[in-house]
Amino acid sequence: TNMSPVKVFGHPMLTNVARVLLFLEEVGAEYELVPVDFVAGEHKRPQHPFAKMPGFQDGDLVLFESRAIAKYILRKYGGTAGLDLLGENSGIEELAMVDMWTEVEAQQYYPAISPVVFECIIIPFIIPGGGAAPNQTVVDESLERLRGVLGIYEARLEKSRYLAGDSISFADLNHIPFTFYFMTTPYAKVFDDYPKVKAWWEMLMGRGPRCRGSASICLRSL
Amino acid sequence: TNMSPVKVFGHPMLTNVARVLLFLEEVGAEYELVPVDFVAGEHKRPQHPFAKMPGFQDGDLVLFESRAIAKYILRKYGGTAGLDLLGENSGIEELAMVDMWTEVEAQQYYPAISPVVFECIIIPFIIPGGGAAPNQTVVDESLERLRGVLGIYEARLEKSRYLAGDSISFADLNHIPFTFYFMTTPYAKVFDDYPKVKAWWEMLMGRGPRCRGSASICLRSL
Repeated sequence: TNMSPVKVFGHPMLTNVARVLLFLEEVGAEYELVPVDFVAGEHKRPQHPFAKMPGFQDGDLVLFESRAIAKYILRKYGGTAGLDLLGENSGIEELAMVDMWTEVEAQQYYPAISPVVFECIIIPFIIPGGGAAPNQTVVDESLERLRGVLGIYEARLEKSRYLAGDSISFADLNHIPFTFYFMTTPYAKVFDDYPKVKAWWEMLMGRGPRCRGSASICLRSL
Repeated sequence: TNMSPVKVFGHPMLTNVARVLLFLEEVGAEYELVPVDFVAGEHKRPQHPFAKMPGFQDGDLVLFESRAIAKYILRKYGGTAGLDLLGENSGIEELAMVDMWTEVEAQQYYPAISPVVFECIIIPFIIPGGGAAPNQTVVDESLERLRGVLGIYEARLEKSRYLAGDSISFADLNHIPFTFYFMTTPYAKVFDDYPKVKAWWEMLMGRGPRCRGSASICLRSL
């Protein structure tokens, strides 16, 4: 009933904002990006009570937490694009695999990869003049942790084409924002040691217009 | 087709294991708890490649990540208990609220409350002789963070009976394992400053047999 574009509050540079935009581009939905002025404390509006980006609004519905927003977007528009990325039209076992690898991204992959992205890209971007050099101890420890995670992904991707099975899912796409940034750091070659993971990433990036939509969001903000 | 009880690998003292058991008790499913010997490295079995508990097995299906396991349990058995805790039989807006508050538990509540539980209960339990005294700096910083989260919960619970709306959901029940332990620490009285949150917790604990099932898991392990 509400036909005006949904609103996303936040800066697209932030990976959690990029996650929401990525899924909006994925389904081809119209949206309005509302810049948020951190300095003025605008991030303390009702759309994001935890003062974290992004906020999201669709008519009277106000949401925060990027993964919950992304699922809502797929449920609202996913049919249009002819995709079942959440696995909700499959059996409960397939659905459980999507849930599980989505949790793995949130609980294992994200904590390993995000400090490298923050140190090498986000902090220099936010701090005027580029800030100090990356904290090499943080970077090295995170890379070590990332290698452990990638080793498990490699074993998984030897058995199935995508993380949750042979079809692409929400779990795969959630890896895009941080991995996209990571691939612009001097540490991108870490992935070369995990050929199945690297091929998986190239599949995700080679999906055509949808992929270019996602990538353009990240590129625009760099 | 597979009628043998599902298996849960791990120690019920661990809150993420307790989360899985809680939902199994909630739906009244039969299960077998398989102890895992950390010292022997048994936690590196395929059921938990990230060496984190719990692992879960239902016939050929092997899962890890406690929140994904919990959802699978609700989908497999939830109908039996006549509950729609995941909101999947509701509209996408209601479902989004369940997802959102589930994410809030994982991303905001858990990081705030868990260090207190680890310092006051888990570490003394695991380390022979009870270990050192709790790290008061960690405890104090976490309590400060927890107060911030509880303030937002208080505002939310002024508007709805439960977190995701007027019906109990997966999002509420996910709070049980850590909160149950927290309430046995000297800091339980922090909740007294948030009367709506306290009343919500008492509602969760006052649900009768299901609640007693959950609580007994935690009590058994203390």
